[in-house]
Amino acid sequence: MALASAASTVPLQATQSEVAEAIANDVLLASSLWVNIALAGLSILLFVYMGRTVTTPRAKFIWAATLFVPLVSISSYAALVSGLTVGFIEMPAGHALAGQEVMSQWGRYLTWTLSTPMILLALGLLADVDRADLFTVIAADIGMCVTGLAAALVTSSYGLRWFFYGISCAFFLVVLYAILVEWPSNAAAAGTDEIFGTLRVLTVVLWLGYPIIWAVGVEGLALVQSVGLTSWGYSALDVGAKYLFAFLLLRWVANNQSTVAGGAAGTAGGDTALADD
Amino acid sequence: MALASAASTVPLQATQSEVAEAIANDVLLASSLWVNIALAGLSILLFVYMGRTVTTPRAKFIWAATLFVPLVSISSYAALVSGLTVGFIEMPAGHALAGQEVMSQWGRYLTWTLSTPMILLALGLLADVDRADLFTVIAADIGMCVTGLAAALVTSSYGLRWFFYGISCAFFLVVLYAILVEWPSNAAAAGTDEIFGTLRVLTVVLWLGYPIIWAVGVEGLALVQSVGLTSWGYSALDVGAKYLFAFLLLRWVANNQSTVAGGAAGTAGGDTALADD
Amino acid sequence: MALASAASTVPLQATQSEVAEAIANDVLLASSLWVNIALAGLSILLFVYMGRTVTTPRAKFIWAATLFVPLVSISSYAALVSGLTVGFIEMPAGHALAGQEVMSQWGRYLTWTLSTPMILLALGLLADVDRADLFTVIAADIGMCVTGLAAALVTSSYGLRWFFYGISCAFFLVVLYAILVEWPSNAAAAGTDEIFGTLRVLTVVLWLGYPIIWAVGVEGLALVQSVGLTSWGYSALDVGAKYLFAFLLLRWVANNQSTVAGGAAGTAGGDTALADD
Repeated sequence: MALASAASTVPLQATQSEVAEAIANDVLLASSLWVNIALAGLSILLFVYMGRTVTTPRAKFIWAATLFVPLVSISSYAALVSGLTVGFIEMPAGHALAGQEVMSQWGRYLTWTLSTPMILLALGLLADVDRADLFTVIAADIGMCVTGLAAALVTSSYGLRWFFYGISCAFFLVVLYAILVEWPSNAAAAGTDEIFGTLRVLTVVLWLGYPIIWAVGVEGLALVQSVGLTSWGYSALDVGAKYLFAFLLLRWVANNQSTVAGGAAGTAGGDTALADD
Repeated sequence: MALASAASTVPLQATQSEVAEAIANDVLLASSLWVNIALAGLSILLFVYMGRTVTTPRAKFIWAATLFVPLVSISSYAALVSGLTVGFIEMPAGHALAGQEVMSQWGRYLTWTLSTPMILLALGLLADVDRADLFTVIAADIGMCVTGLAAALVTSSYGLRWFFYGISCAFFLVVLYAILVEWPSNAAAAGTDEIFGTLRVLTVVLWLGYPIIWAVGVEGLALVQSVGLTSWGYSALDVGAKYLFAFLLLRWVANNQSTVAGGAAGTAGGDTALADD
Repeated sequence: MALASAASTVPLQATQSEVAEAIANDVLLASSLWVNIALAGLSILLFVYMGRTVTTPRAKFIWAATLFVPLVSISSYAALVSGLTVGFIEMPAGHALAGQEVMSQWGRYLTWTLSTPMILLALGLLADVDRADLFTVIAADIGMCVTGLAAALVTSSYGLRWFFYGISCAFFLVVLYAILVEWPSNAAAAGTDEIFGTLRVLTVVLWLGYPIIWAVGVEGLALVQSVGLTSWGYSALDVGAKYLFAFLLLRWVANNQSTVAGGAAGTAGGDTALADD
């Protein structure tokens, strides 16, 4: 609430420096970003250290895809802190804060288009799904992020904001369907179902949090009007869905390289239709 | 004409809401966008329904790539209607409307970078072409769209607008060469030449329309100066090149899953050099 | 120096035409761009001519990936000349030119995200590396370019500019490690080590020049304050790293198609774990 009204005193065409200052002056908001920069940095160091024992090709592939998650994340949060990917938008008629200028961290949606495919790639490789499935799910995931970006940036119509939100959720359903219904059987066949089951629950539960925060935060219904609180919501989810996820996955891969390699061999034999395409 | 002069009364740094209003007040222009939102929505529902019987992996892959076409399209048109991806640009010296501000639907070029690769992917999978060909053609297609975007956005030089137009057409020639000369023999070998022939004619004829509209419309020679009419031109092409294309393809895939699966098997045997790479 | 002070007389929200004029009026700067447009154009014509004898699938794939390098380059330089992807940014406190407006050719970083993966793809195919390696290195390369773009665009904090510079260099180390340590043994196994060795040296030496120019130029420490000189530095590196690189590669591929095809066959046999996935 305090932030929203503070925001309305900043001009709509705020320069990057003005945005950075507005962020720095809000302790709640600034801390939600710096905590992630610190944790992403520690994760990168830890994961590089953990990767020193990974030697088989498939394990190295999963490890690399996972390592990119905190690397993209630290870049994303640095861009937010600098104000480069944050702006003030004037909410359209119909919105609870109509006519007011609200801070939008639109860079989050942009960088999710890079980080979330890496998470799905790692999950898909772990479950040893075929390429068609993996491609479909990653394309849906990118569609989810891009339309989420559009939902955040539309300022001319309240209805169109929710229209994009709806399309984004439709893409999300494709992702959920794959993770919940299709991939578990692949993981079972590949002998990775135990760790896949853990990561699946973690991913599904936490990923469901993002559209909920959007809906109740300043960008949606504005039931919570503090940008700092909303930002902390996203940041907390990121800690679990990105660094904790990556840590659990890498620890398992490092300890089970023979199973991972075996999964690949299973593919070569059992997945004939698309495998050689 | 009427639109172009109306446009020149809107400030160059028009806000998204002002652009959205300018669109909403032009019935011809607004209808060209809403018709596609409606048709894309209906296509999505129809295609999901048609996909319920698709079970083989290769058929599911083609189906998924095709389904993304109307999904990207509905997002693209919603972004245009909202004014998010539309702007007013001042034409450079040498242009028929030099110094005037003209509405540019630059979002079309941006979203084509996402939707047209899906069309080519679906065509390429249908014809069972090798990955090198598919990669090359999709890269050329993305080059075509990005340089088309540049052609639309350059306002400092009339000559450079046509320079980018020329590069975009050069990329287009690569795409045309593949579809017309190379892929038909692949399709014949895969037993999909009948449907491929139909879709090839549909795609080539309709895709040729886009650069023609650009050339004669307000962005090029401005022989047609109505933004609404130009927009209807693109929208009509989209109906054929996207929804009709996708419908014909999906109907055939649903009815010929054994042929589609056979095509994949053919690849595994006949395309050895790159298949296993 | 002259340019930097000239720049400070142009308003921060300079229009594209004003930027294009500022470029055209600086002979040193303008020539650094037009030379590359001319050389990229000649390269395209030459490479198309050289490609007429390339027939095997793997050789065609390498040829196509290489041909895109000058195609992306000519588009990139045309966008710079037009002012579309160039802007004036105000340097933050701590920078040698703090408070002054400096011309930023941010479009270079954007188009490198498209051209440098093609170079790595060509190198990787030549060395016949496995897909996991290629994917990892290309992802790191894209990360390097995107964070380089962020480093160029951050104007709110001098420290964060170097933070992004550091992350970009971290991604670069991954690329260097692959090219210097991992891929040579692949190239030796594929029988392409002679040409790979030449191109590796060329790429590593020239690519190291880019971060050095950034560091000493106006965007970094501003030891060299002429935008024209900095631009010539990048342009000269591009001539070697792009057109010369591509020429040497294509000449070799055209003369050694049987070796290239043999490399592919080697993969199918020796790289079993990931090859069929």
